[in-house]
Formats: sequence, C-alpha cells, structure tokens
Amino acid sequence: MTKLRLGMMGGGPGAFIGPVHGIAARLDDRFALSAGAFSRDAEKNRQAGEGYGLPADRVYASWQEMLAAEKGRLDLVTIVTPNDTHFPIAKAALEAGFNVLCDKPATLNLEEALRLRDVVRASGKSYGLTYTYSGYPLVREAKALIAEGRIGRVRKIVVEYSQGWLSQEVHNKQADWRADPAQSGLGGCIADIGVHAFHLSEFVSGAKVEALSADLGIVVPGRRLDDDCNVLLRYSNGVRGVLVSSQIAAGDRNGLRLRVYGETGGIDWSQEQPNILTINGHDQPSQILHAGAPYLTYGARVPAGHPEGYLEAFATLYRDFADQISTGVPSLVPGIEDGVRGMAFIETAIRSSRNQNWEQLL
Amino acid sequence: MTKLRLGMMGGGPGAFIGPVHGIAARLDDRFALSAGAFSRDAEKNRQAGEGYGLPADRVYASWQEMLAAEKGRLDLVTIVTPNDTHFPIAKAALEAGFNVLCDKPATLNLEEALRLRDVVRASGKSYGLTYTYSGYPLVREAKALIAEGRIGRVRKIVVEYSQGWLSQEVHNKQADWRADPAQSGLGGCIADIGVHAFHLSEFVSGAKVEALSADLGIVVPGRRLDDDCNVLLRYSNGVRGVLVSSQIAAGDRNGLRLRVYGETGGIDWSQEQPNILTINGHDQPSQILHAGAPYLTYGARVPAGHPEGYLEAFATLYRDFADQISTGVPSLVPGIEDGVRGMAFIETAIRSSRNQNWEQLL
Amino acid sequence: MTKLRLGMMGGGPGAFIGPVHGIAARLDDRFALSAGAFSRDAEKNRQAGEGYGLPADRVYASWQEMLAAEKGRLDLVTIVTPNDTHFPIAKAALEAGFNVLCDKPATLNLEEALRLRDVVRASGKSYGLTYTYSGYPLVREAKALIAEGRIGRVRKIVVEYSQGWLSQEVHNKQADWRADPAQSGLGGCIADIGVHAFHLSEFVSGAKVEALSADLGIVVPGRRLDDDCNVLLRYSNGVRGVLVSSQIAAGDRNGLRLRVYGETGGIDWSQEQPNILTINGHDQPSQILHAGAPYLTYGARVPAGHPEGYLEAFATLYRDFADQISTGVPSLVPGIEDGVRGMAFIETAIRSSRNQNWEQLL
Amino acid sequence: MTKLRLGMMGGGPGAFIGPVHGIAARLDDRFALSAGAFSRDAEKNRQAGEGYGLPADRVYASWQEMLAAEKGRLDLVTIVTPNDTHFPIAKAALEAGFNVLCDKPATLNLEEALRLRDVVRASGKSYGLTYTYSGYPLVREAKALIAEGRIGRVRKIVVEYSQGWLSQEVHNKQADWRADPAQSGLGGCIADIGVHAFHLSEFVSGAKVEALSADLGIVVPGRRLDDDCNVLLRYSNGVRGVLVSSQIAAGDRNGLRLRVYGETGGIDWSQEQPNILTINGHDQPSQILHAGAPYLTYGARVPAGHPEGYLEAFATLYRDFADQISTGVPSLVPGIEDGVRGMAFIETAIRSSRNQNWEQLL
Repeated sequence: MTKLRLGMMGGGPGAFIGPVHGIAARLDDRFALSAGAFSRDAEKNRQAGEGYGLPADRVYASWQEMLAAEKGRLDLVTIVTPNDTHFPIAKAALEAGFNVLCDKPATLNLEEALRLRDVVRASGKSYGLTYTYSGYPLVREAKALIAEGRIGRVRKIVVEYSQGWLSQEVHNKQADWRADPAQSGLGGCIADIGVHAFHLSEFVSGAKVEALSADLGIVVPGRRLDDDCNVLLRYSNGVRGVLVSSQIAAGDRNGLRLRVYGETGGIDWSQEQPNILTINGHDQPSQILHAGAPYLTYGARVPAGHPEGYLEAFATLYRDFADQISTGVPSLVPGIEDGVRGMAFIETAIRSSRNQNWEQLL
Repeated sequence: MTKLRLGMMGGGPGAFIGPVHGIAARLDDRFALSAGAFSRDAEKNRQAGEGYGLPADRVYASWQEMLAAEKGRLDLVTIVTPNDTHFPIAKAALEAGFNVLCDKPATLNLEEALRLRDVVRASGKSYGLTYTYSGYPLVREAKALIAEGRIGRVRKIVVEYSQGWLSQEVHNKQADWRADPAQSGLGGCIADIGVHAFHLSEFVSGAKVEALSADLGIVVPGRRLDDDCNVLLRYSNGVRGVLVSSQIAAGDRNGLRLRVYGETGGIDWSQEQPNILTINGHDQPSQILHAGAPYLTYGARVPAGHPEGYLEAFATLYRDFADQISTGVPSLVPGIEDGVRGMAFIETAIRSSRNQNWEQLL
Repeated sequence: MTKLRLGMMGGGPGAFIGPVHGIAARLDDRFALSAGAFSRDAEKNRQAGEGYGLPADRVYASWQEMLAAEKGRLDLVTIVTPNDTHFPIAKAALEAGFNVLCDKPATLNLEEALRLRDVVRASGKSYGLTYTYSGYPLVREAKALIAEGRIGRVRKIVVEYSQGWLSQEVHNKQADWRADPAQSGLGGCIADIGVHAFHLSEFVSGAKVEALSADLGIVVPGRRLDDDCNVLLRYSNGVRGVLVSSQIAAGDRNGLRLRVYGETGGIDWSQEQPNILTINGHDQPSQILHAGAPYLTYGARVPAGHPEGYLEAFATLYRDFADQISTGVPSLVPGIEDGVRGMAFIETAIRSSRNQNWEQLL
Repeated sequence: MTKLRLGMMGGGPGAFIGPVHGIAARLDDRFALSAGAFSRDAEKNRQAGEGYGLPADRVYASWQEMLAAEKGRLDLVTIVTPNDTHFPIAKAALEAGFNVLCDKPATLNLEEALRLRDVVRASGKSYGLTYTYSGYPLVREAKALIAEGRIGRVRKIVVEYSQGWLSQEVHNKQADWRADPAQSGLGGCIADIGVHAFHLSEFVSGAKVEALSADLGIVVPGRRLDDDCNVLLRYSNGVRGVLVSSQIAAGDRNGLRLRVYGETGGIDWSQEQPNILTINGHDQPSQILHAGAPYLTYGARVPAGHPEGYLEAFATLYRDFADQISTGVPSLVPGIEDGVRGMAFIETAIRSSRNQNWEQLL
C-alpha cells in the first residue's frame, strides 16, 4: 500500500495539537509527511520542517505558497492552524483540488460553515474534521449498539465535558488564543469543548438537537468569552438532554462523559477511562465491555487489557481518512455536515443564553 | 440515658420507608417504640403493632385517635404516611405538643409548607424532616470542608439523581401512589427525588437557589406526573448549577451524585459509594477521604474500611433528632425551612417548565 | 413472632466488637437483650447494663454467675469476650443448655476447638460463629453462583485481607490484646484476619484447603506475634490458591477481597465495596451484580443502589441464627466445623512458616 | 536531530509484538526503519518489507545475511523473533558492532543470559530489553517516589499478573509457540508474564529478590508448561512479597498490578488503568496522581485527562533507547542485568516448585 502524501498547515513548536496530528498521522504508517507550512515565525517553521525531515524547499512561509507550489504533489492537506484561518485555508485547498483534514472547529462561525459546505460539495473532495472522540473504539461500539436497538428507543441524553485548567487566570499560548474572540470565535468553553460534547452526543445516539436553552457564564473575571456552560437540549423525537461543560471545574482534567438512556437500558462512556463501556440494563446486571475484546465490532490495536488512549483515537481518524481518500467510500470520520451543526450549536447556545430563552437550532 | 418514647404514624406492612424508619429508630437504641397507627387497614395495623411488640391498646385505628390518647405519653411522633397526610398530621401533632419527625416531603404544596412553618414556630417543638442523604458522614464532612474554604468560594454545582425503576410501566403500591397527584402532589420525579438533589446541593454547598429554568417531561406514556426533569439553576452569588434527575434512566439504580466546584478545587460524592469523598484540587493530586478515618470531623459507627450505608445515614438523623429533643440544641437534621424551600423548588420547577422560562424561587 | 431472649457476655464500653453485636442483634428486632455480664470491671459492667436498659439483677459480675442464674430464662448467649475465654464460656453455656453465638475465633487453639466440637455435638444446641463476611448478600450470592456452576469447575483462588492499622507501633486496648499471645492465641495477623480470608475462600468456593506453605513475619520490631502473612494454598481437587494478609499494609483499611476462577470465568468481591459482585466471563463482557437487585437469590434490606454495609452483614448472621434457633433448620451461619477448620489453618500456617515447608491441614 | 537507522529482526505479518515495535519506533519519529529480516517465510518477509516501504535489497532472508550486509549502515537492530533466537541474534549483532534492542526474554535460559552479559560488556554497545511496563510514566513516578522515601522504608510487595486467555485450550500462532518448550524456554506463565511482574516489582521498589518458594501448576490438561504460578518472595532487607500470576484466570485480561508498602504508606498501580497512581498514606486521605499532571516528575505526551496506554509506554522505551544510543548516557530502559535476573527468577521458580522448597536466587 503506497503512503498518502500529506502537507501540514500549522502545528509548529509550542502548539499542543500540532504534534498530536503528527503522531496520529504516523501511527498507522499510512501517510508520508511531504510538505508543510508550520508557523508564521520563519525560524520555527524551519525548525519544524527539519524536525520532520523535510527538504527545505517543501517547507513554505505561508499556506498560500504551499497550496500554489504543491498542486498535484500531495494527496491531502491537514489544517492545524488557529481557528480563524480554518475556513480560508480549507476553502482554498479544496478549490485547489486537495483533500482536507481539518482540526475542529470547521470555521469561525455558522455562515462560514455553510459556505464551506457548498465548497466541499462542489469540490468532490474528501473533507474530514477531527472530532477526536469519535475515534475511540468504544464510542463507535456504543453508536453501533444503539443503532442496533440494544437499549431500545433513545429517551434521554446526558453529556458532560468538564475541565479545570482555566479555573485560575492563565496566560500562555494555549489559554490566550482561546480567550481572544478574533482568533477563536464567538464562543469560549462552548466552542472549545462544549461542541465536542454536542457532537459526541449526536454521533453516538443518532438523535439530532432541535432546540436548546443555554446558560453560559464568565466565571473568572476579566474574560471576554464564556468559561462555563450548561444547556438543556431537545433532540429529535422529543428526546430530552442536558449538556454540562466547563473550563472552570477546578480539579477536573478532561471529563468528557456520555450517557444515553433508552427504553430498556443505558450506555455510559467516559473519556478518562475510554477502554470500558458500561451498558446498564433495566433489572439486569450491568455489563462492562472491554476495548479489544473479541465480542466487539470495532477492534483495537492491542488485545483487551492493553489500554489505548487519546493518540490512538486520533490516529484512527487519520487511518480512516486514508481509507476514505483511497477508496472514495465515506468513513466514520466527521465531515462538513458535523462542522455546520457544530457552528449552529455554538451560535444558538450563545443566542439562547443572551436571550434567556429556548431557541431552535438551524 | 433514658429512651425517648416514640409513636409511629404509618409504616405498616408493604411500605418501603416504614421499616426503614423502624430500623433507623432502633439502631442507636435511643428510642422506645411506644405507640402506633400503622395502617388504615385494621388487620395490617394489628399485625404491625404485634410485630413491634406493642400492647394492643397502644395501636390506634387512626392518627387522630393516637394523638388524642397519647398526649403526654410520647416524646415524639414520626410520620411515615402518604404525602397528602403529612401536613394535617404534623400540624395536629405539633399543636398537641408532640415533637415531630416527618418523612419528606414536608407537605403537599408550598402553601401548606408555609402554614406548617408558622405552626412549628408557634409550637416551640422540634420538627425534623428526614432528607436521608444529609445523614451520611461524608456529606456532612463535605459541608464542613466547603464552609471552611477548602475549595475556595463556590462557583458551580452539578447535582444528579437518576433512577431507572419507572423506565417501564410499573404497577405496584410504590409506583401507584407516586403517580397519583392526589396522593403525591403536583410533581412526579421532581418531587420524589429531584427535591432530594436540590436539598443536598444547598445543604452541602451553603448556596441557595434563587432562580431556575426547568424542563420536565413525561416519558412513559400514560403518566400524569413528570418522570424526567432537567433544571438549570442560579444560586446565590451568581453561582450556576445544573440538576439532572430521572426515574426513567433505565439501568440506573439510585444515582444521587453531587459535585461542587470552587475557586481552587471541587468535591465529588456519590450515594452509591457513600464511604468515599473525593476532593480534586487544581493541579494537585486528587484526595480520597474514607468514612471512619481519624482525620475526619464526622465520625462513623465502624472504622474506615467497614462500609456503612443508607440505613446508618437514616439512623444518624434519628440519633441527632434524639439529641435535639433531649438538649434543645438544633442539630443537622433538616427542619421546616428545608421543607418550605423544597416545596418552593418543586412548584417553581413545574411553573418554569410549563412557561418554558426562567423563574425566581420564592 | 416472639423475640428471642439474649444474654450477652462481654461487649462492655471501650470494646469495638461489643456494640457491633448490640446493633446487629437489634437491627431486625428478633431479640430482646435480657441479661448480660459485660465487663470484669464492676462500674463498666453496671454502665453497660444501664445503657441497654437492663434491670440491675440481670447484670452479672461474671459469666459463671450469669449462666447459673439465667438457666431456662434465655434462648441464647452471645460471647463477645477476649479470645482466651471463648472456649470455657461456650462449653459451659452449651452444657447448661443455652444456644451459643460466639465471636470468632471459636477457641484459642485447635485442641480446644476439637473438644468444643464434641460438646456442641453432645449438646444438641445451636452453635454459631460470627465470621462477619459470610453475612454479606453478595458473598452468599457468589457462593450460590459457584455452586450452580456459573464459572465452571473452580481452578484457582486468590484471597487477600490487608489492613494498615498496625503498621506503626500502636498501644491501645484493641492493639494490646491482639499482641498478647495469652489473650489472643498463637497467631497475630493470621489469627485475627488471615483466618477470615481463609474462611471466606472456603465458604464461597466450596473447596477445602488441604495443604499450605506459609511465610509469616513480624515486621514492626518488638512484636511477639506475626503482623504479616502470605500463604500458598492447595485446596481439594488440586485447586491452587494464595492468601495474602497483613496488618502492616500501611494505608490500607479493611481490604478483604476474594477472587475465585473457574473454567469459564471468575468472580471478584471486595468488602470495601460490598454491594457489587463482578463476574468476568472468558471472552464475554464483565457483569456487575448489584445487591438488592431483583435478579438475585439473596435479598438485601433496601433496593439496589441503597448501600448496605458491615453492620447489616453482621445483623444478617443474627437474623439467620434466630431462624436457626426457632426452626431447628441449619442456616448459613458458620458453625463449629468452621471453628475447627479455622484453628487448624492458623496452627498449620504457623508450623509451616516455622519449618519453611509445605504442611498438611488436619 | 537525525533519525537513528533501525533494522528489524522478526515482526512479520501475524505476529502480535512485531507491529507494536513498529508503532513504538515510529511514534516519536526518532528512527528510520532502514532494513529488516521479518520472517522466515519469503513471501511474508517481502510483504512486510513492502509494507514498511523498504527497498527490496534491504529486506533479508535471514538475520545472518542482514547482519553481514548492514554492518555500518544501521545504528541499531531490534529483535522481535521467537525466544529461542534472542540469544544468538543479540550475541551476533553486538559482536558485529550493532546496538541491540530486544524483546523480552533476553535469552532462553540463565546460562545464555550470563554469556550474553559478557558479550554486552565486551561490546561496549547499548543493549536494551523491552520490559514494556517500565515505560509507563506513573511506573517511573512510583519508582522515583519510593526512592525519595515517600512511603518510608519498603516492607512488603504484592505483585500480580493475571490473564485468562489460556483458560481454554487454544491453538493459534500466539498460543502454540508459548506452549512449546523448544521455542519459549523452560517456563510457561512464569516466563511469559510472571517475569514481567517480577521485573516490575524490582524496578519500582528498588528491592531485589533473594529467595523464593514457588508453586507452579499446569491447569489445562495437555500442556507441557506451567499456566499458573504463585510465588512467595523474600527481597533484600527481609522484605516479604508475593507474586501471583496466571494465564488461566478466566475472565481476566491483562491484570498486572503492583502494590508496594512502606513504613508510612503504600503505592498501588494497575496496568489496565495506567494513568492513575494511588498513594495510600497511613491515617491520611488517599492520593490519586494523574499522568500528565504538572506536579509529576515524569511527563506524558498529552495533558492530564488524555489517556495514554500500552503503545505509548512501549514508544517511551524506544525514545529513551534513542537517547541512550545518541548520548551514551544510560537510561531507564532495562538492560542485560535485568535480563540475567529475569532468567534467574524463572529457573529458580521452576526448581523451587519442583522441589517444593525455598530456593535462593543467584
């Protein structure tokens, strides 16, 4: 199997998510990192290129240069730049004939997302969005089990995503761009992690949010964007839900958890213990499913009892996107439709919180 | 120490909570069960009295008879009857000079609760309300730790109480009276268990709910009262909160869990694992406190590692109420003010859900 | 149902296990505490009697006086005295026609246990031994499930009981008598808690220890009895096992855990989380059974999700012993045979450790 | 940083551990896979080479050919072949001037290990042994904490490694070579996984096993090598320990767990939940340390709350070995001394079990 030629936008030294994409792309050995525009800082850009073993002439000062020079020489570009550039880069790349794999969020706002959807459709190219958590084997298993009716018709969804790292005033590269509306968009917590929870809940349950009532807050003084958000949800078919998310949940780490209740039981999955999936049946013993076990539909890289984590989930999105590009068959990698819904969720939640009212989504 | 003479109203055979009160009263050997009106069914009433070893002449056909006949012969009466009788019995008992320990809810609605508050104040008697979960040692420890500033100023509260036993259509004594507005009041899930979660959150955090936006649903067709409820909360000082409660959370048992986040950390307690209390400090190792350990303020009946549970928590309320009656010093046992707030919460949540709006509490 | 008349030996103020027996006897309301010889200290004895509401003439200065005076007036005596008096009291009580419920160990050594077995057999009376952990509902469930073949033929047993309270030099009533061979017998850790683990493993698995190789140590300087013990076991049918027990496992509380592996799966139960029982099936999802759930054989006092603990387990032994006395039908309460095997285990382990060799049991 | 040129021996299609080494080598981008002799089957060998993107002339039919042809063209060789070839390949590679990273066990028996030690010493090259579990960040943290005296002087060690995958008769490539003494050596369970537990216990505690009493069994009929092993241990300074390991623990997955107790507390780590480390202090709240947290000495690849697992632990050994080769400074990667001790442990356990006696190690 020949490796796909990949060009990376962003992800230079000091970034959190850049190296994660690097590892994810490498893990299954399906890609050859062939070009990059890693940083607007020339020296950092050069260093990153060298670190990846790239020849100097395939390390570009800007994404525009890279797209122009690499036309026809790459199978895909990955976008790991700040949020405000996701839209222009993705648009230009698709229009230039590249497949695109983009870090979330798809765009800075809903309007851009809708425009990008048109671009994707017109391009005929593959567009993927790395909602990381959809790459975990047991998340996919949960989706499949619910689709098969294992817990009956879905009735209630509780999803939470609590972090504590912004519970104090923090100033560093990671914290600063997230606090700047120009770089990160209209939402703080709701856009950074709340939308992950939103996506996970739809991905697994198959239900779609139709309306919501949000209460977004700024807890740490001086912030311009929300750092805490709580949302009542109404999914399709009258399913009620709750989304609780925070970056000021002091002492919490990366507390993403999803519970979906159906007529006959519920599923429960937590990102911090991703290798088990609990199925609670009504008046039945609870069942614990273990990633990698032979009775599962979605395999793991190592046998049950050998834990996998965040990087492997990310790598699975890369691997699946490689398949998607190679075969043309859609995969489980989230796409532009997920991007559009995510931006709609963020904007609707902000509007609902401002108006203190229930609002329709889309 | 002489035992307090106790008369029990309700709690005959077939009841769930009656025998629990019986065990709770016995556990610390502070009470002598001296009289009772256990059931409106004469045969069941007789059996219960015999079971408790009471002479036939102190087993009464009605609470009215008992109050009349036992004046001056009992130190307290406990009320374990259906919700709709809590108010008249408590009122009559207090006016007749008895101390009263009543199963929750205090009354059927807010108006009764406000009237009962007047009666309690006028009576000079002790009135206790068995919000069970306030009897757990680590719940009390959490309350004390927060009051001492262990997690800094409170910022966010997440409380949940999920059960699955009504996820199917159920018909038995327990399910039926809860589904009948005449017997149980205006609320279903919100009044049966949501209010426990509400109380626990205020008891531990010290914050008071000021406004809320609720979404109450009837999930199982044919019900007349809510069986699922999700509520956004605003506590005093702008603290945001979420309350998630359900009786249709299929596969869940008695999932009461409270998380309170402050400036520097958070506490986490779950009723199904009541003997540990987790304190998550920001950028610190998590701490697990074990009930019965020597470093705690609130002791347990047995040393750390020897689990205690629901019955012991209930018994602690009885023991503390015995102290309160004997010494006149207020205890941690919830009182009429908690009863009033609980009814206000229930009525406000129902109104908010009907109006799809934020509503002020009291 | 008339209550059984109970006379208590030992259990005066300051004891740990005395009040536990008191609560256990009270919980299900099956006994009337009718007489006692609580302490060799006259004042403490008087206080205890008063605390239990006994008339002064049924509080005795010695067990001998009590047995003589109460003949025919009690249904059973419970023995909660120091270990060295268990044998003479039990023997005398049985010979005087009382049923006997005795705290473990049955006797001070194997020879006494064998003699007591003869006395029990000759007496025709019920003799019970409060190996507490056999009273937990899920321990009994595990026993039943294994007997039914749920995990296939038993192949391996791992049982541990780790405490840390003697990891430092401790001097108080509880620590001191345990460190004195005259009061506690030949074994320290092995006799105090190791034997609990031994009993639990046989009770649940149905297998019997036939040989062992023990390594007993004194870790804290100055002790005369072992405070740490590790034992290789051979049960009937060639089943291998390991018993790990310690009182110097610093930081541990009451870590009794049993795992039994069969041909097709294993069970796992921990005393510190007694309300769940895990069944791990080979290449199957794990199952978590919850105490109080409707699918179980052995019921709990409260529904699933309402935790029970140590006191309830103890009370269940009392309740079952009440049934045994009332009906004459043997119950699950351990008896003299368990006492004999326990003493044999202790003596064999001590001998094996001294000889550094495998030794046969009995 | 230039990448180290790596040649791989073994690891062709169908192997479990080969691809794991491949991913581990790739993850941190420190190696360039430059040559290989992947399989004795020519077609599989060719496929593997192609899969790794190697030119055909650097894919060799045998390790002997590869060593001869690649002299001076590789920085290291990794050995992922069946156990019986570890010794000859490692010996030849070292003598030919290659650094060597070898899958465990180092050799087939103690005699070979001692000879290999001489070769390593004489070669002046780096020799690493991939005892995977020493690569987990919290295992290293535990080692450092104990060395710093966090739990006081070590007193007791309990280590277990339970798997259930051989609880039934299994026939496949993985099971078969392990059951064949010629390929896997004298030990079954004891050599395959028991030795991992042995190594982990010494690595973390700093104590060395001096004597042991083992009970090894063959549980599934027809096997020629042990599939269950239980061992009493005496470490240096009189520290007692227990090692419990099994491949017939039906329903278990990869249950490696280490507890080390000191004078003032204990540590507890489980491989199936590798991102937390529990420190239980005597009469103190338990502490849970989270991998990736800022208060730790050993960092993780992603922030706390983003789980890492088995592959990352493996990759860490590769990364550290890269550092060791590049700088000449010894790393935490286990070496030949660990290999020698492992073989001594296996042989001593087998001898002890046969003789039913305590035996000295080395």
